[in-house]
Amino acid sequence: MENKNLQIILHSRPTAGISELNFALQKSQIPFPQAGEVLLKTLYLSLDPYMRGRMYDTPSYAASVKLGAVMIGETISEVIQSNNANFSVGQLVSSAHGWQQYAISDGSNLVKLPEYAVSPSAYLGVLGLTGLTGYGALIRYGQPKAGETLVVSAANGSVGSIVAQTGRNLGCNVIGITGGQEKCKILETELSIKTLDYKDDNFSENLKKLTPQGIDIFFDNVGGDIAFEALNNMATHGRFLVCGTISFDRNLPQVKSIDRFPSAFSQVLIKRLKVQGFIFDELVDMKDDYHQQAVTWLHDGKLTFREHIVEGIENAPQAFMSLFKGKNVGKLIIKI
Amino acid sequence: MENKNLQIILHSRPTAGISELNFALQKSQIPFPQAGEVLLKTLYLSLDPYMRGRMYDTPSYAASVKLGAVMIGETISEVIQSNNANFSVGQLVSSAHGWQQYAISDGSNLVKLPEYAVSPSAYLGVLGLTGLTGYGALIRYGQPKAGETLVVSAANGSVGSIVAQTGRNLGCNVIGITGGQEKCKILETELSIKTLDYKDDNFSENLKKLTPQGIDIFFDNVGGDIAFEALNNMATHGRFLVCGTISFDRNLPQVKSIDRFPSAFSQVLIKRLKVQGFIFDELVDMKDDYHQQAVTWLHDGKLTFREHIVEGIENAPQAFMSLFKGKNVGKLIIKI
Repeated sequence: MENKNLQIILHSRPTAGISELNFALQKSQIPFPQAGEVLLKTLYLSLDPYMRGRMYDTPSYAASVKLGAVMIGETISEVIQSNNANFSVGQLVSSAHGWQQYAISDGSNLVKLPEYAVSPSAYLGVLGLTGLTGYGALIRYGQPKAGETLVVSAANGSVGSIVAQTGRNLGCNVIGITGGQEKCKILETELSIKTLDYKDDNFSENLKKLTPQGIDIFFDNVGGDIAFEALNNMATHGRFLVCGTISFDRNLPQVKSIDRFPSAFSQVLIKRLKVQGFIFDELVDMKDDYHQQAVTWLHDGKLTFREHIVEGIENAPQAFMSLFKGKNVGKLIIKI
Repeated sequence: MENKNLQIILHSRPTAGISELNFALQKSQIPFPQAGEVLLKTLYLSLDPYMRGRMYDTPSYAASVKLGAVMIGETISEVIQSNNANFSVGQLVSSAHGWQQYAISDGSNLVKLPEYAVSPSAYLGVLGLTGLTGYGALIRYGQPKAGETLVVSAANGSVGSIVAQTGRNLGCNVIGITGGQEKCKILETELSIKTLDYKDDNFSENLKKLTPQGIDIFFDNVGGDIAFEALNNMATHGRFLVCGTISFDRNLPQVKSIDRFPSAFSQVLIKRLKVQGFIFDELVDMKDDYHQQAVTWLHDGKLTFREHIVEGIENAPQAFMSLFKGKNVGKLIIKI
């Protein structure tokens, strides 16, 4: 075995959409911990749609990854050497050390994993960023009430499945949108919610039929056509939550077609909608509340989660590309 | 003089956009008040963009005007016969008796004009529906803070000018958008705010230059291109208030061009915007507060208003059409 640190770097910026060729595998020396530092071995790496935006250098809510730098990402790691009294060897921590096998930390950016009876990888999904995003945003911006109709897109994704289950647990009439009959069946069986297949030719009619009183809350993870259909089926005073736009790469040239922008904002007016964009950062104050609730629900079987685990850091680029093709069910994780 | 009630009815539904030909003038008998009723003579009729939507029979937040029925609209009237002890002859009232010279009421839908030192027509504008809409929505949904940048479209319109002055009085950095240098000059002189001419070829660059920190609150009365430019210049956590879409008739076939919908919602996400649609109904609880504030400001010269008065009910259709051509400055009122 080579004693190297395998890393995936951003090799080039995307031109006609992101590609595996934008990444490169690089071997570097395993770093050496100085006084006060620890050496971390990555166990799990989270892959999430937001990373696409960081590959471009257009302005966004967060800085781009620099060319030649290790791709960013949330990680679960084990402390394998420690010069820091706060961390002993064997301690599991969550942090954001990106697409690499080893990393150095002075401890300031590490969170020790609590002793819940879940796998460490769960701290990248259901108990991590995506879980809190789904739960926190639904509660804060959606203000769901029992009996309301909640529709969530990418409902089998890492955020969507938490939204769907939270809504269900709070007594909402939940409808999950996903692609293909197989994924619909998984959702219906595992989450006990109604589903809609966006690949069905009658998607639009089916959405209307399933929401005769209109959609009170639409939790959007995909943008584009599905978002537009939902917007046209909102109930008066509906809340439209913009969590992600995975179907839309704003850095690509935009397709010529009907301009749906004026009509979209006309719907906002007619239905007196609230459309709210948000990112994870705005929900961190809800983290403790969420963990308490999530652990209780996990224990009671009222919250389940799926992980789509791919082994090997070298497979991260390909796995990442699959995210945008709607291929995975559940949280996409690289096991290093 | 003929003893007739001149009325403007909805004669046909629009096909390729609204037209004067959709209206017809009709003479009917002046109605006779029964026990408990009063006969009203209309003094002023308000013309507002929302009326366009009522000419179609597509679903909206309010019922369509029936074919052959008198066009709806807010009115100021004088009681000229009274069989109702609550109303004496000569009493001025506001109500919504539409595009006609005379109307009957049992008093239940009448509001007596208070004794403020303003012209009765002001109760159709600054102290009426449009004033409250501008003030109430800005306060409730915009939550303006001193020092914030507030941009308002159709800033010389009946809603826009109230928004601009409210923002200015609260210490915001206010920028009013209007069409043409002449209208800009009027705004700058009368309201002491900065202006932007949307007809200027460099509108987009000018908007960017005038809002270097981004727009904290955009109060939109027009929709379409101006709204889209504003959306792309919002500050993080900006509030985008959808009050009107006068530039957009959703009942017309939509122009093929770039589809700006996905990009618009991507901006909502990136900037974590709140986009809020609303109508007047949701603000009526703020009416007393607003009147108190408005009367004080009017007295102190901190609130001014313009009326664009057209004489004669028979001229209402033509005047109404001019609303959509950006021709008037201030509240459009028909003096009957």
